Amino acid sequence: MALVIQKYGGTSVGSLDRIKAVAERVIETKKKGNDVVVVVSAMSGETDKLIGLANQISQNPDEREMDLLLSSGERISAALTAIAICELGFKSVSFTGRQVGIITNDSHTKAKIEKITGERVRNTLAKGIIPVIAGFQGVTESSDVTTLGRGGSDLTAVAVAAALGADFCEIYTDVDGVYTTDPNVVPNARKLSKISYDEMLELASLGAKVLQTRSVEFAKIYNVPVVVRSSFSNNPGTLVVKEDKEMEKVVVSGVAYDKNQAKITAIAVHDKPGIAAKLFNAVAGANIVVDMIVQNISSDGKATDISFTVPKTESKKALKITEETVAEIGAKGVVLREDIAKVSIIGVGMRTHSGVAAKMFETLAKHGINIIMISTSEIKISCVVDSKYTELAVRVLHDAFELGERKRKRTKK
Amino acid sequence: MALVIQKYGGTSVGSLDRIKAVAERVIETKKKGNDVVVVVSAMSGETDKLIGLANQISQNPDEREMDLLLSSGERISAALTAIAICELGFKSVSFTGRQVGIITNDSHTKAKIEKITGERVRNTLAKGIIPVIAGFQGVTESSDVTTLGRGGSDLTAVAVAAALGADFCEIYTDVDGVYTTDPNVVPNARKLSKISYDEMLELASLGAKVLQTRSVEFAKIYNVPVVVRSSFSNNPGTLVVKEDKEMEKVVVSGVAYDKNQAKITAIAVHDKPGIAAKLFNAVAGANIVVDMIVQNISSDGKATDISFTVPKTESKKALKITEETVAEIGAKGVVLREDIAKVSIIGVGMRTHSGVAAKMFETLAKHGINIIMISTSEIKISCVVDSKYTELAVRVLHDAFELGERKRKRTKK
Repeated sequence: MALVIQKYGGTSVGSLDRIKAVAERVIETKKKGNDVVVVVSAMSGETDKLIGLANQISQNPDEREMDLLLSSGERISAALTAIAICELGFKSVSFTGRQVGIITNDSHTKAKIEKITGERVRNTLAKGIIPVIAGFQGVTESSDVTTLGRGGSDLTAVAVAAALGADFCEIYTDVDGVYTTDPNVVPNARKLSKISYDEMLELASLGAKVLQTRSVEFAKIYNVPVVVRSSFSNNPGTLVVKEDKEMEKVVVSGVAYDKNQAKITAIAVHDKPGIAAKLFNAVAGANIVVDMIVQNISSDGKATDISFTVPKTESKKALKITEETVAEIGAKGVVLREDIAKVSIIGVGMRTHSGVAAKMFETLAKHGINIIMISTSEIKISCVVDSKYTELAVRVLHDAFELGERKRKRTKK
Repeated sequence: MALVIQKYGGTSVGSLDRIKAVAERVIETKKKGNDVVVVVSAMSGETDKLIGLANQISQNPDEREMDLLLSSGERISAALTAIAICELGFKSVSFTGRQVGIITNDSHTKAKIEKITGERVRNTLAKGIIPVIAGFQGVTESSDVTTLGRGGSDLTAVAVAAALGADFCEIYTDVDGVYTTDPNVVPNARKLSKISYDEMLELASLGAKVLQTRSVEFAKIYNVPVVVRSSFSNNPGTLVVKEDKEMEKVVVSGVAYDKNQAKITAIAVHDKPGIAAKLFNAVAGANIVVDMIVQNISSDGKATDISFTVPKTESKKALKITEETVAEIGAKGVVLREDIAKVSIIGVGMRTHSGVAAKMFETLAKHGINIIMISTSEIKISCVVDSKYTELAVRVLHDAFELGERKRKRTKK
């Protein structure tokens, strides 16, 4: 007998028929002798509808009020799911974030979980009753309702799993697992049966939006095995777990891409200490998240080019800040480029295998794709390329590292 | 400077434009130097929509789950109203029933308020911030969400007014006050400027559905002056207060009617002690609320007719129970009559004036309306008549007691 947390996303509870199907799946798991705790998102579209209502009243609604507003969606789906489980003859009760004892800080709309008491859930399980928890929400110490940010129900599920010491946490969504890359770009993309937390983090933050990033970080810290699977099928899904020996044999697990990137270059900036600090302090001060940064020391030691990428939506603001900052120092100019994309290969095996970067660059070159920027981490290599080559780059890299269905082999180089 | 509680019903917050209008009215009151506490219902139709969803899943959904589900509607309108007030440049925060400290018993879907701490509302007011409270809801001591039954937001408003010692409690709705009778039946029905709690209770429970009955009882106990008025106009509305000398001069304040009545008669029941107790215990055991009861001792002292009225929706069930019960005792039969209505005149002045009943019976007789049952209380006389005469009866009584607009005079007999 295992203790299983099952989280159902917005499309999985998107209609009354879907909610009934969820109830059946929960009971199936229960009948196999498991204890089940259910976590649900709002019915799909519900959160956006509520945001739309608030925005029609105010362009800048108070975040505390938004949290009280938005937390309603999950309460509705939790209550309906509990009713559906009861209707099938099993005992079930729904709980809000507060009732489960999810205490957060007071950063409204993006609160961080500080602790979970989980008392009532434990007592409920002990009585053989199935608890259904409204995801995405908690309360502050002073009892104000908070929400955990987009995808926050994933975090609720993982955090509850950690608090209860669950055997695993199943995340039900509308895709049946994590793929080697976007199947819309590469038709023979393969579903991964297993992936490490770190690889999942890189894939998720790079655009493979299956699991909320913070929930993966949380799962990693508390070592919660997470299964990503579809509520529309019985396919086994992808297991996200601690890195193991087996995983290291696979050099590259996936290829990710991100088209929401813009590049800003400050050309021939006078090269003296503190320039970069000054520039990026100014950008950070405007709450713009910088992704990649590349700086080359100039050959004469007097001037340098600094390039960095920001989300495309922030590019105009970042351009203005950069222009103002370099104007104080002196530079040849500032250039904004928006027609770029970031393509990345990810794999824990990189740590112990050499030649991976070279193979990536070779592959891109062979297909005439110029590399604009490069950045590397322990388990990821990212190249910025002209955005028109995005899909081509993803396909050729997916092929080169033999990630596709059928012809898969271990890459040994 | 006064402390005013303003409660806005479903139609008053029925759209975003209406919510903005509510925000303006709240601020107007605040600008006049008053402290304002706002209580809101769910946007009109919202509660029924949620009930509909639950009923599509289960014909008999768990009441605890229903309460979590239904409490969402008021949270949404409270948050939106607070956002709308902030948008107009005033400070406002929304509160749930729990945050206000509304503690109830655990009778889900029809919980009774046990206490209100009101701590946070007081602190919020002290800071010059306008609190907006989600009506209709509370929590049990063990922290489960409860709702207060249909019209429960009225009760929230009155209870908060009592807890805070408010100067008065304004109930904003889609009618501009309490009328002498239904204006749809009697076009020259007159809006009452003042009415006593007891009269309001009789009018409300008899079908003039402006204020929830329990909220009036609560207002009476804690002596909260209540103003019923329209959020669609600036008309002054009707003040519901403690009875005063002035009111006693008015013999009849209003005429009410109720068509949702059915009459059951057990004919020639053997007249021995305990018969009535046995019958009405059986009916009460089925949770059927009996309204009027009439029993005449038979002339020979051996048999008696017992008649009573029940809500029309319960008539078949009540009939069956009555048949079973009298079968054990022996009777000539049981008759159900559904084509009846109850017409009542109400007024605290009846206590000190005589001849009121006679005038009512005379008036009905003069228009050929036969009286089927009569029942009286201190401030009310009710007659059951054939339902086809309902409107006629209401009109002639309204005329006879000179309740209409313009030609109004004090009735002295």
